[in-house]
Amino acid sequence: MGTNLTNLFLAKRTKSIRTSIIREILKITVKDSEFLSFAGGLPNPNLLPSELIQLATEKTMSFNRSEALQYGDSNGYRNLRSQILERFLDLKDLDLDSICITHGSQQSLDILGKLLMDEETNVLLEDPTYLGALQAFSPYEPKMFSLSLEADGPDLLELETILSKDKIHCFYCNPSYQNPSTNTWSIAKRKQVASLLDEYGVILIEDEAYKYLDFSGEVFPSIASFRKNLDLTFVLGSFSKIISPGFRLGWTVVPKSYQKYFTAIKQGNDLNSNQYSQIVMDHLLSNLNIDTHLAKIQMYYRKQKEHMRFCLAKYLPEVTYHDPLGGMFLWVNFPFVSEGEFMEKMMEKKVVMVPGNEFRLFGIESVFFRMNFSFLGEVEMEEGIRRMASVYHDIIT
Amino acid sequence: MGTNLTNLFLAKRTKSIRTSIIREILKITVKDSEFLSFAGGLPNPNLLPSELIQLATEKTMSFNRSEALQYGDSNGYRNLRSQILERFLDLKDLDLDSICITHGSQQSLDILGKLLMDEETNVLLEDPTYLGALQAFSPYEPKMFSLSLEADGPDLLELETILSKDKIHCFYCNPSYQNPSTNTWSIAKRKQVASLLDEYGVILIEDEAYKYLDFSGEVFPSIASFRKNLDLTFVLGSFSKIISPGFRLGWTVVPKSYQKYFTAIKQGNDLNSNQYSQIVMDHLLSNLNIDTHLAKIQMYYRKQKEHMRFCLAKYLPEVTYHDPLGGMFLWVNFPFVSEGEFMEKMMEKKVVMVPGNEFRLFGIESVFFRMNFSFLGEVEMEEGIRRMASVYHDIIT
Repeated sequence: MGTNLTNLFLAKRTKSIRTSIIREILKITVKDSEFLSFAGGLPNPNLLPSELIQLATEKTMSFNRSEALQYGDSNGYRNLRSQILERFLDLKDLDLDSICITHGSQQSLDILGKLLMDEETNVLLEDPTYLGALQAFSPYEPKMFSLSLEADGPDLLELETILSKDKIHCFYCNPSYQNPSTNTWSIAKRKQVASLLDEYGVILIEDEAYKYLDFSGEVFPSIASFRKNLDLTFVLGSFSKIISPGFRLGWTVVPKSYQKYFTAIKQGNDLNSNQYSQIVMDHLLSNLNIDTHLAKIQMYYRKQKEHMRFCLAKYLPEVTYHDPLGGMFLWVNFPFVSEGEFMEKMMEKKVVMVPGNEFRLFGIESVFFRMNFSFLGEVEMEEGIRRMASVYHDIIT
Repeated sequence: MGTNLTNLFLAKRTKSIRTSIIREILKITVKDSEFLSFAGGLPNPNLLPSELIQLATEKTMSFNRSEALQYGDSNGYRNLRSQILERFLDLKDLDLDSICITHGSQQSLDILGKLLMDEETNVLLEDPTYLGALQAFSPYEPKMFSLSLEADGPDLLELETILSKDKIHCFYCNPSYQNPSTNTWSIAKRKQVASLLDEYGVILIEDEAYKYLDFSGEVFPSIASFRKNLDLTFVLGSFSKIISPGFRLGWTVVPKSYQKYFTAIKQGNDLNSNQYSQIVMDHLLSNLNIDTHLAKIQMYYRKQKEHMRFCLAKYLPEVTYHDPLGGMFLWVNFPFVSEGEFMEKMMEKKVVMVPGNEFRLFGIESVFFRMNFSFLGEVEMEEGIRRMASVYHDIIT
């Protein structure tokens, strides 16, 4: 972090702390409503099940008032863990103790960093990777390695070379509609990676935040479901993208041998997750037809994605990207500009997206931006891309 | 943590992680309703402003639905920060950027550990001290020093000896109705300590979780309010004891020079606090007469405390304690028993409290227990103390 506060007393690890440009952008765009932001990973407000959430809050206050307003179990509200177990997981032999509810899956990344990573831990990450994972892991100062991504998942030869050469302790990945690359691992690669991780005894941290956002309604099986060694397998999920990020609720499947450590860290971090929100979520899931709800989101986001493609083709024919199978983003290559200049000039025109190097361990020359299509309405999206194109063409001509 | 999982891959710091017996007890007592628990720090259910909370949730869904269900500012919801600034702080020259809302003040302890503590940081703690601070700080492996507490605050001679002998970087304390000792620092000692900390350039972490729970309605000025060097002063507060712990909302006053680091760590930890709960709390504070509400809590807890004293005098005349000025606990010395044996036999009779050595860096021989009086009703309290007395007299006779 650039600073002139050289005399400030700080723990040594703070030199490794990364800020998130996304959060800074969010702050600016909240203050200035003329900004058109393609930066966040915000669900579309029209898709939040507001009526049912309202009903769930009423039920919570009528039937669970006392427990909703008290401290709760550090592992999370049991009924909610039970619903997560039944509805959102494809692993065998789990019980309620296998699941810990966290304050968004972001909190789990921090807990896993604290649990598993020190300066002697070797962590393998996809390149690019989720910025929030870099933020969560960095303060624990592990050695980080990166693995190239292809459209259907990691480069397996490179993976095997890394695993055979370096002792990798943990592999963090986001196999479905990856944030930010949007790449989705094929089932074949999921199986092959599971088998390689078993062979080399590597801990898997599988982040499934976007798992249910496939445009055609497909749900890919987890990598974890193909592993033999579930003792080395953590699976993270979240309600933020499919229900609402306002409640800050995610979950982690924790292998038996790690459970007491994970819980002890969760306690030290925040005692327990928001009990009120957990009970609201439990009521909501009991009343919501989740399949219909997910189908609605999937259809909506596919339409939004198609609209973004249409606008890019119309205004910015120079750019390239893979057409994703799901998720909330396009990962777009902008030739002939520099990241810094393009970003700065877009900010002047009140349009923003996230520069690709934010998602990398080591910056590269090629200019990518992550463009969110879930949040803006069609008119704003077109206007934003028009502004962006005008900035882009000003620079390259 | 005792374990036979010696082959488990863990970060080195996990050897320093402390579990909380309180959370384990909470789990047992939730499962078995026959347990009478003096262990937690739970507000009395009768004092939760449920009707107004219900109203606040309705307002949130009517007027702030979209923002309540989205991601928010990492520093917290602005209107709520503004109310905290106006109502709960006695420091000058603060602005909204001075305040960061955290997931309970427990989260702030973790953030401060990450920000300030590594194996070369010297941290001074009161003896005894808040268990949650030990849990939050330990994984960052600072060197911890302890300072004896007298009824009116720290032993000043000892404090000066420590400060002049060892380079102390941070001092964590809980000056009002301390958890667990219940001791409250006099105003004179607050001033003297502030001046010593200024003189030696020590960072103050002042935890004010119980500040508003004085039995006579007095609100002690913060130590921070007497400091010259506010650049080295963090002040923590919480809604858990005065409104409801279910929303997991606390706040920290962060000095200007540390703000960007604190926020970056908050982002990596969990992106942002629960937006829905923050907006509910904001509406609630706008509708609640906080003075009347606090007066009600203060009166209720004084009555509860008196009832506990009555029961102890009746059933356990052997024990000793200071009569506290406020808070939720008595800190009780039980002569002639061992902590372990007494605890174990109480569990058999389904009554629990927290053994004193949980709150200490280094265990001592004398047997103290922290007894909560805020939660149980009068009848259960008497029954619990009757059971406890029967166990105690069984052991000592």
